[in-house]
Amino acid sequence: MTDLMNLGKRAKAASRMLAAAPREQKDRALLAIADALMNEQDAILEANREDVQAGAQNGLSEALIDRLTLSAPRLAAIAADTRRIADLPDPVGLEFDSQALPNGLRVRKRRTPIGVLGVIYEARPNVTVDVAALALKSGNAAILRGGKETLRSNIAMIAAIQQGLAEVDLPGDAILYIDEPDRALVLELLRLDAYVDMIIPRGGAGLHRFCRENATIPVITGGIGICHLFVDASADLDRAIEIIHNAKTQRPSVCNSLDTALIHRDVAAYILPRLVERLGPDGVCFKADADSYQALGARAEVEPAGPEDWDIEWLSLVLGLKVVDGLEEAIQHIQNHSTGHSDGILTRTEDHATTFVDTVDSSVVYVNASTRFTDGSQLGLGAEVAVSTQKLHARGPMALQELTSYKWIVIGEGQIRE
Amino acid sequence: MTDLMNLGKRAKAASRMLAAAPREQKDRALLAIADALMNEQDAILEANREDVQAGAQNGLSEALIDRLTLSAPRLAAIAADTRRIADLPDPVGLEFDSQALPNGLRVRKRRTPIGVLGVIYEARPNVTVDVAALALKSGNAAILRGGKETLRSNIAMIAAIQQGLAEVDLPGDAILYIDEPDRALVLELLRLDAYVDMIIPRGGAGLHRFCRENATIPVITGGIGICHLFVDASADLDRAIEIIHNAKTQRPSVCNSLDTALIHRDVAAYILPRLVERLGPDGVCFKADADSYQALGARAEVEPAGPEDWDIEWLSLVLGLKVVDGLEEAIQHIQNHSTGHSDGILTRTEDHATTFVDTVDSSVVYVNASTRFTDGSQLGLGAEVAVSTQKLHARGPMALQELTSYKWIVIGEGQIRE
Repeated sequence: MTDLMNLGKRAKAASRMLAAAPREQKDRALLAIADALMNEQDAILEANREDVQAGAQNGLSEALIDRLTLSAPRLAAIAADTRRIADLPDPVGLEFDSQALPNGLRVRKRRTPIGVLGVIYEARPNVTVDVAALALKSGNAAILRGGKETLRSNIAMIAAIQQGLAEVDLPGDAILYIDEPDRALVLELLRLDAYVDMIIPRGGAGLHRFCRENATIPVITGGIGICHLFVDASADLDRAIEIIHNAKTQRPSVCNSLDTALIHRDVAAYILPRLVERLGPDGVCFKADADSYQALGARAEVEPAGPEDWDIEWLSLVLGLKVVDGLEEAIQHIQNHSTGHSDGILTRTEDHATTFVDTVDSSVVYVNASTRFTDGSQLGLGAEVAVSTQKLHARGPMALQELTSYKWIVIGEGQIRE
Repeated sequence: MTDLMNLGKRAKAASRMLAAAPREQKDRALLAIADALMNEQDAILEANREDVQAGAQNGLSEALIDRLTLSAPRLAAIAADTRRIADLPDPVGLEFDSQALPNGLRVRKRRTPIGVLGVIYEARPNVTVDVAALALKSGNAAILRGGKETLRSNIAMIAAIQQGLAEVDLPGDAILYIDEPDRALVLELLRLDAYVDMIIPRGGAGLHRFCRENATIPVITGGIGICHLFVDASADLDRAIEIIHNAKTQRPSVCNSLDTALIHRDVAAYILPRLVERLGPDGVCFKADADSYQALGARAEVEPAGPEDWDIEWLSLVLGLKVVDGLEEAIQHIQNHSTGHSDGILTRTEDHATTFVDTVDSSVVYVNASTRFTDGSQLGLGAEVAVSTQKLHARGPMALQELTSYKWIVIGEGQIRE
C-alpha cells in the first residue's frame, strides 16, 4: 500500500525547495508544464478516453461522464490557464506591517508559502493541473488525491507536470499524486499533520463534512451555496428580473447560482408573474411559498414549497420564491437558511442597502448585482482555488495570496526582555 | 446535563448583537466589567480561596496551586488589563482591498467578527476575563470552558462579566460558561460546528492534540515552543551570553523561553564555559552534546544529552547545548527539532542573518535578540489571545485583529455575469 508517511516526508522536503525558489523559476516551471501538457496531448487524451469508457461501463451518469471528459480544446484551455497563472504576481516574500518598537527592535511580517497542501477532489481532471499550478506559483508542495473515475487521466497529466518540474530543476516531489484508489488513504492523508499543513476539499457537501470530521489538519471548507436575492420594494423591478434570471440560469450547477428569491410584498403582484414568464422558458421550475403561490395562480412550472425546500442547494433549474413583509423578514430568512456563501439585495433605498450589507454575514454580500460574481477571476484575483464559507484564514474566493501564511521577522541589536 | 446545543444557539444569537455593537458600547462594557470585578472582589477572592483549599486537599502541585491563586493585587491587574483592552482600536468594520472592476462593480473587504469562539483552558482564572474582554472588543461571543480546579473562581468572575454586560445593555449570552465538570461536554463543544466558528485551546500539548483530533470546528493550535538560538562565529559573544541568559532564565516556564543553544565550533571553547558560569548560578542545568560536553569537562550542572533531548520543550531551567559546524548545520537542526515557534541567530555576518531569516520557517524568526519577545504585547499588538504555530489564519502572537474574519462587499448597478 502507498506509504503516505513517506509521501509526506518527500513533499515536505520539496516544499522547502519550492519556498526558496525565485519567481522566475516557478514561472518557467508553469510554462514548461503547459508545453508538456500540449506535447503529451495524445497520451493524455488516450488515458482520458479509457477513463470515459470505463465510466460508461460502470454506469456513470451522463453529467458525470461529461464532467470527466477531456478534449483537445479543453486540454489547450487548461494549458492556457497554467500560462495565465505564470503572469500573476508572486505572493511570496511580500513584507507588511513593519514597525520599529520603542526598544529598537525592528519588526515586520513576510508572506511565506504554507508548506504542503493536501487536495482531495472528485471527477474533474482539470483540477489536477489547476491546483498544481496554483500550489507551485505560491511556493507550496501538494499531495493530490483525485477521483478514481479519472485516475488514468490524472496519472497522464501528473507525468506532464513532472516533466515541467524536471525541466527547470524543481523537485518532482513538489506535486505528488496518490494513485491507489483505496479510500483508507484519504483518511490517512487527513491525519498526516506531521507533514501536511492545509487540506482543501473540492467536491460536494459530503466530502467537506468527511474532511471536517476526520482531519487533524486545518481544512478549508466552503463551496456550498444556498444563495438569496431580496427584491426590495424600491428595486428597479425589470432589472431585478434580469439579475434573477442571470443568477439562476447562467450556470445553475454551480455554488454561486441563486436558490431563493425573496420578494417584497408590495411588488410581489408585479414581479412574480413576470419572473415566471422570463425564467420559465429556460426550464426553471419554481417552489413557491403560500403567498407567492397564491399570487401566481395555477401554472405548470410552479409548485408549493415545503418547509425543507429553503435549506436545499438546488444546483439545478429550481428557484424558491417567498414573499416577505420587508427588509427585516428578508434578513431573518437569510440568517436562518443561507450557507453564508453569496446573498444580495436589489434596492434603490440606500439605507436598506447599508443595513443589509452590515447585517448579512455571508462571504460575499451584494447590492444590485448577480450572485454569479462570487469567483476568484470575476472578483479580480486572477484565479481561484476554492470559495471558503468558513470564517478562518480566508473567506470567499481564494487564490494565490490565500495559499500563503506569514512569518514574523524581528531584527535586534542584542535586545533582551526586561 | 448542560444543553450545549442550546448554549450554542444563544451564543450565536448574542454574537449577532455583538457584531452590530458600536465601539463605544463595547468599550463601556469593558470598563463596566473592570468595575464589577473590583466591586465583587470579596466574592471572587472568597470563591478563589475555596478553589485553592479544594486544590490543596486534592493534592495539586504547588506550582498549580500558585497558578490558580488570585489575590487583591492580581485581581486589580486583571481589571486594569480589561481597561487597557478598551483603549485598543476596534478591529471591526475596517475596510481594505477596495477596487473597481472593469464592469463597474465596486468591490471591497470589510473586517467582521468571527462569530462565536469556543475557548478551552486549564487552571488559570485570569484567562476567563482576558479572553472575555478580547472576544467582546472584537465583537465576538464566546463559550468558555475552564479547568475544574478554578470552577468557583470562574463562576464568580463570570457573574461580574454578566453584570458589566447588563449595565450597557449587551446580551449576557455573549459570554457563556460551561460550569459542569463533565469532560464529555468538551468533546461536544468541539463538535458544535453549527454554532461555534473557532476553537482556541489554551493549555499544554495534550489539550491541543485533543482539540485537533476531535474538533469539527477550525482550531488554532500553538503555544508549544522548542526554541533555538544559534551563536554564529561572528556573534558579539559576550552579548550572546546575556541574550541566552535572558531567553532561558527570565521566565523559564513559558513557551518562548529558550530550549537549545547551538554554538558555532569556532567559538565553542570561548562561549561554553562562560555560558555555564553565567547561567549555572541561576539554577540552570545543561544537556550537552558530545562536543560541548568535552569542551566543558566534568561539571555538576552539565550532563550528556540523549538524542530525545532535542525534542523536549523544557519549560524549566534546562538548556540543551550543541556544537555545530556552521550556519547550515544549525538550520538543519532547527528544521528537524523546532516546533516552529521562535528561533533566532546571533551574528554580525549580514548574509548569514539573511539566509537564516529566509530559510527558517518559524512563526517568529529573530536576529540578535532574545526569543522572549514572542508575545502580543511585546510585539506591539497590545494584547494576546494565543501564539499560533500553525500556518492558517494567523501565525505567531494573535490579538484583536486575529479574532476577526472579513466579508466581501460587492456594490453594483444591476450587473449580470456574461
